[in-house]
Parts: sequence; C-alpha cells; structure tokens
Amino acid sequence: MDERRVKAGVLVIGDEILSGRTHDVNIRQIAQFLSPLGITLGEARIVSDDQDAIVEAVRALSARWDYVFTTGGIGPTHDDITADAIAAAFDRTIDVREDALGILREWYAKSGTELTPARLRMARIPDGASLIANPVTGAPGFQVENVFVLAGVPKIARGMLEDVAGRLRGGVVTQSLAVRLENVREGDIANRLGELADAMPDVSFGSYPWFQELPDGSLSRGVELVARSSDLAALEQAGEALKALAGHR
Amino acid sequence: MDERRVKAGVLVIGDEILSGRTHDVNIRQIAQFLSPLGITLGEARIVSDDQDAIVEAVRALSARWDYVFTTGGIGPTHDDITADAIAAAFDRTIDVREDALGILREWYAKSGTELTPARLRMARIPDGASLIANPVTGAPGFQVENVFVLAGVPKIARGMLEDVAGRLRGGVVTQSLAVRLENVREGDIANRLGELADAMPDVSFGSYPWFQELPDGSLSRGVELVARSSDLAALEQAGEALKALAGHR
Repeated sequence: MDERRVKAGVLVIGDEILSGRTHDVNIRQIAQFLSPLGITLGEARIVSDDQDAIVEAVRALSARWDYVFTTGGIGPTHDDITADAIAAAFDRTIDVREDALGILREWYAKSGTELTPARLRMARIPDGASLIANPVTGAPGFQVENVFVLAGVPKIARGMLEDVAGRLRGGVVTQSLAVRLENVREGDIANRLGELADAMPDVSFGSYPWFQELPDGSLSRGVELVARSSDLAALEQAGEALKALAGHR
Repeated sequence: MDERRVKAGVLVIGDEILSGRTHDVNIRQIAQFLSPLGITLGEARIVSDDQDAIVEAVRALSARWDYVFTTGGIGPTHDDITADAIAAAFDRTIDVREDALGILREWYAKSGTELTPARLRMARIPDGASLIANPVTGAPGFQVENVFVLAGVPKIARGMLEDVAGRLRGGVVTQSLAVRLENVREGDIANRLGELADAMPDVSFGSYPWFQELPDGSLSRGVELVARSSDLAALEQAGEALKALAGHR
C-alpha cells in the first residue's frame, strides 16, 4: 500500500437505514465521489439516532481515518441529533450560530418560508466548525476537524460534497467549476450531458436540480452543473460546453 | 426501551462495497428478514478484506449485540479470508472439516464440478462452529457463538438466513405504519411531531422528507412519517395523529 494513500471513513446516522425501510445510497455515492480525488473508503458504519452511539463512532473513525463523512440527522425534527452529538464528540459547545442563521434567513426570505423554532434548529453549529454549503435546500452542513457533517437526503449530500472537495488533500489534485442554468430541467439536458461525459473522459460531471418557491407562489427552477478535472484546459472546455447546454434543449 | 428488545449487528466484508463498485443490499435484506422476528439492527459496519479489521469488528459487534451477521469473504479465492478471521477473533483453530467437505463433495458430484484445491478452501470451518446450509451453491456458512457467517451474494445470504431463523430467540415484535403527506415540509410539522413523540413514549417516530420530479417536470414534495411500536392500539392512535399533522401547519 502506498504510504501516502488517503483514506476516509463514512458514518451513516439513522434508524430508517437500520430498520431496512430506507436503502442507504450515501456510502456508495461518497465512495464514488472520493475515488477520482485519490481518496478511498477504509470503513463505513451505520448507527442509530442515539447520541452515545454517534459520539463513539465519530471518535473511533476520526482517530483512524484521514477524513470522516457523516450523513443524516441534521434536519429540523426532534430525532435530528447529529450536530449535538458531533459537538459532544469533540467536547465543543453548540448553539445557534449567526452565520448559519444568516444563510437560513436569506434562503427562507426568498421563498417566503417562515423561520420557525424547528427550522432554527438547523442553525445549531458546534463552536469553531466551518460551514458546508447546501445548494439544494440552504441549511448548511459543517466541518469539525477532519469530520464533514452532511445531510442524509442523497441529492443534498452530493451537493455538499462539491463544497467539501476543495478542502480535501487527495492523491490527485482536481479543480472544479459550476454552471447554474435557470429554467432548465434535468431531463432537458440529460442526453447531451451524457454525450459530453462520454466525449470528455478526463472530466467528471455532476448534475443537481434546484427548486425555489417564489413569494408569489410560482416555482423557479434550474440545474446546477459541476465539472471536475485535474486537467485545467479540459475543465475550461467543459465549462463552455456546459453553458452551451442551456441553448440546446 | 424494553429490556426484552433483541438487537443484532451486521458486518459487511468486502473492498468492492467500500470502493463503490458494488452496492450493498445485504444490510437492508438482513434488517427486513429480522424485523418480523422481533429483532432489530442496532449497528452495521462495512470493512475491507483485511484480517485485523475483521477481527476487531467481529469482537466489538459480538460483545455488544445479541447476534451478529457477517456477509462476504467465504468464497474460494485468495481474498476470501473471513473464515480465518472469524477463527482468529474467537481464538479457535481452523482447518478443512469433514462435514463441510462432505457437503461440497455431494454438491459437486451432482453437478460434475471438480473439487479443486481452491474450492476445498470453502470447507475450512473454525473448530466447534455449526454449519449453515446454503441452498443455492452448496458451500456452507457457519455459526460461532453469536456470530452467523453468511455469503456475500445476496441470494445465497438470503437462503442461509432461512436456515438460521430457527436458531434465533426473537424479541417483542414491533409493527410500523407510514403516513405520506404531500405538499408539507419537515419544518412545517417538526414542532407538533416533537410534541407527539413526547406525548407517546411507547411509539418511536421518524420523519423523512421526499422530493419527486413528476413526468411533466413539475416538483412534488412532502414528508413520510413513520411510527413504530409493539403496542398496536398506541400505533393506531399515532397513525391518526400523524394524518392530522397535515392540517395543522
């Protein structure tokens, strides 16, 4: 084994996975996202919505692997206890944080959504953590030391990984760019995006639909397209091609 | 929590799962098989084909949970090291065992398959282990103490579970119901759901947001609420309360 091999652990948090009701796809998704970055998964664990179980697993994985990715348990409901458990695992305090609150306020203002006490819960961030952008529903994830705390909804977790990629020291250095298309549906561009991916094997492409409710009740929608590569010239070319997709529906 | 609750751990062994190349379905399959027996999963882990990693995980899970199910690594190739790792975890010797060899001989005689040295490897069973029948390809799994060693191929693992079921002492059987709310966001109902969870301690509640793109391109969203209990009357009451949540935004 290469001594410089970078390895990660994954911690999936959620009774719904252990009950068999929901099929986890995040372990595989994270493995596939990290692979082109030169990072491989060394271990994955699934634990229930139980603070002691989360604390123990986070500490064990954080000590053993270069990076740890957790998924699940950062929503607004009573069973969302991940943020508090991560704070406990690293002996940090936790409270509603202004930067996270600002993100929620801005996001909800656009959609006319009320910032209820329950939603305020999603601004609870451990002291000293850095936020992780959520391009799908706004509410941020966060990073404490080598642990990245992501949402459980796979589309959101995938979007958060994009924000995290730049913080990872991988075996291969990659760059990324994002193109945000409005009034475009994934299905409109899926074929051409697939062709593009086939034609540019050195670039990996990601597609993330977004939806936003406007105050007048109408729906604004679009797709955020992300390209990633270690070849900067190829990446630039990919960016132009992605922008052109909007005109080729 | 009920003291009679019976819980199990799952250990998935295999680099192909951690690499993201293969999607694990055994965790969910085992959870769904155990649930009607009154046994719930408390934890699952995925480790690589590495003896130290397997030994450590087996010991930890075996000590913590009533039962442990491992999948993967009992085939004929050099990277199938699960049997030896289980023997090491329980300080047992391991060798080709006559009863397992007999099963392989009989199975291969029927199909005219040659019993090669590689296939002989599948008759290596830890001392004192009891065999688990494999209705699909013959080569048996085995049980050591509270650990059941199953194949990784899902169909075979499923077949082996049938043979194992009779050896399991089940717990209280819990039932669950799901209520699917449309056009509701988690934040809309989080407060009332938390109050409900507090008011009904014999029922566990889960909340799972869903998003769905309709064929016409429009977006449908909502929340699936799940209640789980061994008390059927309480569960029914919970179901009514959950349906009523939609009207109380």
